[in-house]
Amino acid sequence: MWATFFRRSFSTTPAASPVIYSHRSGAKQKKKGNASALKTPRGTRDFLDENAHRKSTIRTIEDVFKCYGGTELDTPVYELTDVLLGKYGGEANKLVYDLVENDGERCSLRYDLTVPFARYLAMNRVSKMRRYQIGKVYRREKPVMTKGRYCEFHQCDFDIAGVEEPMLPDAECLSIVDEVVKKLDLGSFTTRVNHRSLLEAVLLQCGVPVEAIQSVCCSIDKLDKEPWKKVSEELRLQNNIPSSVVSELERFITFEGENTDMIKLFREKVGGPQATASIQEMEVLFDYCNAFGVNVTFDPSLARGLDYYTGMIFETVLEDGACGSIAAGGRYDNLVHSLTSETRKPFSVPCVGLSIGIERIFSLLEQKKKNTKEAVADVFVASPQKSLLLERISVWKKLRDAGIKAQFERRNKSKFLDQLQFCEANDVKLAVIIGEQESKEGVLKLRNVATREETIVPEGSLIDEIQKRLVD
Amino acid sequence: MWATFFRRSFSTTPAASPVIYSHRSGAKQKKKGNASALKTPRGTRDFLDENAHRKSTIRTIEDVFKCYGGTELDTPVYELTDVLLGKYGGEANKLVYDLVENDGERCSLRYDLTVPFARYLAMNRVSKMRRYQIGKVYRREKPVMTKGRYCEFHQCDFDIAGVEEPMLPDAECLSIVDEVVKKLDLGSFTTRVNHRSLLEAVLLQCGVPVEAIQSVCCSIDKLDKEPWKKVSEELRLQNNIPSSVVSELERFITFEGENTDMIKLFREKVGGPQATASIQEMEVLFDYCNAFGVNVTFDPSLARGLDYYTGMIFETVLEDGACGSIAAGGRYDNLVHSLTSETRKPFSVPCVGLSIGIERIFSLLEQKKKNTKEAVADVFVASPQKSLLLERISVWKKLRDAGIKAQFERRNKSKFLDQLQFCEANDVKLAVIIGEQESKEGVLKLRNVATREETIVPEGSLIDEIQKRLVD
Repeated sequence: MWATFFRRSFSTTPAASPVIYSHRSGAKQKKKGNASALKTPRGTRDFLDENAHRKSTIRTIEDVFKCYGGTELDTPVYELTDVLLGKYGGEANKLVYDLVENDGERCSLRYDLTVPFARYLAMNRVSKMRRYQIGKVYRREKPVMTKGRYCEFHQCDFDIAGVEEPMLPDAECLSIVDEVVKKLDLGSFTTRVNHRSLLEAVLLQCGVPVEAIQSVCCSIDKLDKEPWKKVSEELRLQNNIPSSVVSELERFITFEGENTDMIKLFREKVGGPQATASIQEMEVLFDYCNAFGVNVTFDPSLARGLDYYTGMIFETVLEDGACGSIAAGGRYDNLVHSLTSETRKPFSVPCVGLSIGIERIFSLLEQKKKNTKEAVADVFVASPQKSLLLERISVWKKLRDAGIKAQFERRNKSKFLDQLQFCEANDVKLAVIIGEQESKEGVLKLRNVATREETIVPEGSLIDEIQKRLVD
Repeated sequence: MWATFFRRSFSTTPAASPVIYSHRSGAKQKKKGNASALKTPRGTRDFLDENAHRKSTIRTIEDVFKCYGGTELDTPVYELTDVLLGKYGGEANKLVYDLVENDGERCSLRYDLTVPFARYLAMNRVSKMRRYQIGKVYRREKPVMTKGRYCEFHQCDFDIAGVEEPMLPDAECLSIVDEVVKKLDLGSFTTRVNHRSLLEAVLLQCGVPVEAIQSVCCSIDKLDKEPWKKVSEELRLQNNIPSSVVSELERFITFEGENTDMIKLFREKVGGPQATASIQEMEVLFDYCNAFGVNVTFDPSLARGLDYYTGMIFETVLEDGACGSIAAGGRYDNLVHSLTSETRKPFSVPCVGLSIGIERIFSLLEQKKKNTKEAVADVFVASPQKSLLLERISVWKKLRDAGIKAQFERRNKSKFLDQLQFCEANDVKLAVIIGEQESKEGVLKLRNVATREETIVPEGSLIDEIQKRLVD
């Protein structure tokens, strides 16, 4: 039933001003009328990583993933079409890119990283695993670049497969997101959690007919952007839910309070074994979150990603409201089984996972001007005369061999002043200056770029002298 | 003409015993008769990075690339089909994977990283750039897993675009490969270099008809695996080259000697402005190589990647002969222009580049057992009693917040001995032991895993004590 929801699709509110990754020249891609104009395919873009922020962000996330026991898995960019078919719900299934058939094999580009992970588990009959994966996924949507909606974009997932202490892996997922957002210093944020089974039980108890649950969830999910008044109207007019049921729903869905109050309300007011079990799971989850030092808010209106989810679901939103969710996830205990159910030996593994919206994070960091341009070099090998290029290379090579981060002037004829200005503009600490006269005498000049002091150094002690100065 | 050569295609000699990346359980993918069996698409595989060697290899390569001024560029996995068409030569063009057309846009998976780079330069009219890219490329070939031939595999490229000191960028490419192979400690290796224009001039001078140049190159290129006798037979019988021409060819192609001898021979024996200019370029190249401390061998039989190449070409081979080339590249001055020649404003940039066969390197490192399993943690939080899971998490959280690499026992009921054995088996340095009695008294036990010594530590000074011990 929960068919039109996508697992882990981030809400489409755009980041305040989406960053266009263009070349350093600042030249934007020109629109051209003719068919032979050069461009990237619709909805894709080039990423030029001039600044170190993309790589350092990913490194930070990977370090957290590893501390939670994660192993990296890299799956093919395309899967057999049969593996992907029917896993994403009606609308989403249409958004899968197909490859032209190859020797009778139907393949499609991956739509997310979750189904490939489930395929890996099912194919290798792996019953326990913590894996992370950072990779591109593909959606044949109408791209809206200004809203940050692309056909090719990154996902950054961590998933825990296997039977562990009940709700501990769920809490670990929340703890991972908490750590990542704090480590990346993205500002205040809220993590809202809910339970898919509980939500279903609540809707049924309030009198929502089984066949309307999906559309009611769709409406309820809008509560993070719209007031209850508007949502309740939609429920009455579009979903034909009787007013009595809507006001019954209001009691549960819009209830705000401490997590313990919520637990109490649900325990008192929602009956049946499904609800009871879910409520208990949420209690255990909150205990673990407490131990992990993670703040979460029980939000009974959260209804995301229902095609996969079977248990806890969550979404993390930055409080400045500039962009939608930056992380989301939940428990999906039946996906692996659904992949094997047609084979002779069905295989099942419970799973829970999370997805971090790294592209959104890149944009945010770029806006916050947190770009840390990597130092070009510690030492620059320069020369005032032309035709000393080979000498510059030899000296540079010695520095490289000694493990010193160095660059050299690559132009044969280059104004000396330009070379010194390059050093100053790029925060290079030392310049090694090779002159014709000095070269004959077996000495070099070492220049402190900041103070502009120059010292004559014998060639033989150059490395020692530089290493001493770089340490100071 | 040179149509059947692929740029930068590595020779297909397999690595001694190709490594299958399977799950840690060691379970291999089972062959199944039924169509619904789960598998990855033909010629693709999952990579599980249990060991740190893949990542650390890439990090080493990236560090070298950056020291040569490289900026990372990430392009889409697919390009407009028109961009790729006709760039790879007759046979290779058939190996491009097409996507099912999307709103009238014909796209294909990228076949290498060079044409996308040239497209980027042409599209943004970039006249100077040093970029590196590590990514997957796609070839619709018949996969031969045992020979390491896949449909999806990685390429690792560095390219220099723009006008610089003649032959300096070419020498830098050779120096990069030299540094990478030495840094990765892959054993002795040889880098053979040649010049595409010179080779063409030699063939014409020896009397090879223009229309036979392509097939003659094909035969000559086999000289690294077969003796001259066999190649000369092929030239006579298959290519219909007269015996007189073949023996004339032998003089040049099989000549062995110092690079300076080769230069001398070609200068004396091959005429015309094309040959003269190429020979001079090679001389300058050798001077730069000398300054960079890079050994190269002038090999007039090297004939690789001729579809793109316009100048210097090279190939690096490990001497133990276990696998084919692990790096290759060359100069391609016309590719960017060929992409823009149909638009109103043609644009041209000379380029030279290299490609490192990282997958081959991964296999080699795996065989050499150079896998450095990353330490699971420095500290493990254990407890002898069950039901202390929340306490373990709280202590672990404190360690994490202090930046200590820690893990905790995740099972509620776990044998204490198993926990201690885990620490010993995984080289964990310290174990924090939480006991019920100690917990009440506000103290913890700190165990040195190697010496098995245990000390009682007050909770408040745990972090200090651990940090002190980890430094020691």
